[in-house]
Amino acid sequence: MNCDFEAIFNKNFPFWDNLDKAEQEFICKNSTSVTFTKGTNAHDSSECSGFFFVNSGCLRVYIMSEDGKDITLYRLHSGDMCMLSASCVLQSLTFDVFIDAEETTECVVISGPAFASVSERNSDIKIFALELAVSRFSDVMWVMQQILFMSVDRRLAIFLIDESTRTSSDIIELTHEQIARYMGSAREVVSRMLKYFSNEGLVEVSRKGVKITDKPRLRDLTL
Amino acid sequence: MNCDFEAIFNKNFPFWDNLDKAEQEFICKNSTSVTFTKGTNAHDSSECSGFFFVNSGCLRVYIMSEDGKDITLYRLHSGDMCMLSASCVLQSLTFDVFIDAEETTECVVISGPAFASVSERNSDIKIFALELAVSRFSDVMWVMQQILFMSVDRRLAIFLIDESTRTSSDIIELTHEQIARYMGSAREVVSRMLKYFSNEGLVEVSRKGVKITDKPRLRDLTL
Repeated sequence: MNCDFEAIFNKNFPFWDNLDKAEQEFICKNSTSVTFTKGTNAHDSSECSGFFFVNSGCLRVYIMSEDGKDITLYRLHSGDMCMLSASCVLQSLTFDVFIDAEETTECVVISGPAFASVSERNSDIKIFALELAVSRFSDVMWVMQQILFMSVDRRLAIFLIDESTRTSSDIIELTHEQIARYMGSAREVVSRMLKYFSNEGLVEVSRKGVKITDKPRLRDLTL
Repeated sequence: MNCDFEAIFNKNFPFWDNLDKAEQEFICKNSTSVTFTKGTNAHDSSECSGFFFVNSGCLRVYIMSEDGKDITLYRLHSGDMCMLSASCVLQSLTFDVFIDAEETTECVVISGPAFASVSERNSDIKIFALELAVSRFSDVMWVMQQILFMSVDRRLAIFLIDESTRTSSDIIELTHEQIARYMGSAREVVSRMLKYFSNEGLVEVSRKGVKITDKPRLRDLTL
């Protein structure tokens, strides 16, 4: 088979090996390599752009108000996939987002209608697509809840900035468990919010502890 | 087969007919009829209560902050099903909710582990469960977006109260299209928010127009 994307699909789609040659070829034929220049719009909530696989770069997925304010739902980095840009694939998906390229981003895009037709015939693909959507929704709902209600983002940012000032270091050498105890929160909550911060480029999380990588933006969260 | 719930399952589960007798019996055996008294808690975010089917009454699904504030995500009425109370069934579902009985409510509850094991073996069931979750998430995300950003709930409430005062009637005899034009919004947005209002018991929507059924609570939304 002559398919530029076979290695990518094989590595990232758990269902790939179970497809027959015709199905694999159909998906390949309906996929294109797309480069979005930094700062451009990659998907508009009014279209069904299709299924995005990010090869390199960074896409920002967000929702927007009528007067132009927006809230970032999540960022897609190398290896990430996006289903919310393909609402035409899943009937149950009636929620639309915008996507911008924050850096120049190389993607493989599978056409929405092609993905829809193949997922109607193959339940493994449909389950994969639905699970991707449920998992993103779970993350986004969780983040919105923490931000709206509990201000965990703000409380964690304040704690990290305070610790960094106290120790005169950008590395906070504490476990998630210890941070949670200081904040009066649960370890799971702190770990998940740190993962969100890390995805946002605010911190780096390693075995050593938490390293602040963008202090100005982290400080903005404390206001 | 001796199963009290067969009629309900047959009517509401599109996959029911495709199950073999053993699978049907397994689901039946792991289902129980539960009555939640008005005002009691039916599900706590720390448990996996299972899959809820509402026979009669009304359940309120909500999220809660550490200091006890809550936001209603949606209400379940007769015939509605809830997947978010069974996060153990779907690995991708990592978001938890609370559920209270707003009226005394009769439910059929399918045990979480039993539903999980049968959905692992049968992709129709898994797709059904995932689609139910995606569809709820889509609705909830949409509502949160409208409320957070665009105040469509507030603007629509103000419009309905103003119209009702102007015409001295609780029935607003306008189409969704006309309401949208007055509000400077889109028909789809108005229709969907009216559906949300109607589910919340604030209005009744019919071909004649929109009837205000709970003016005090609608008025609260305008503040």
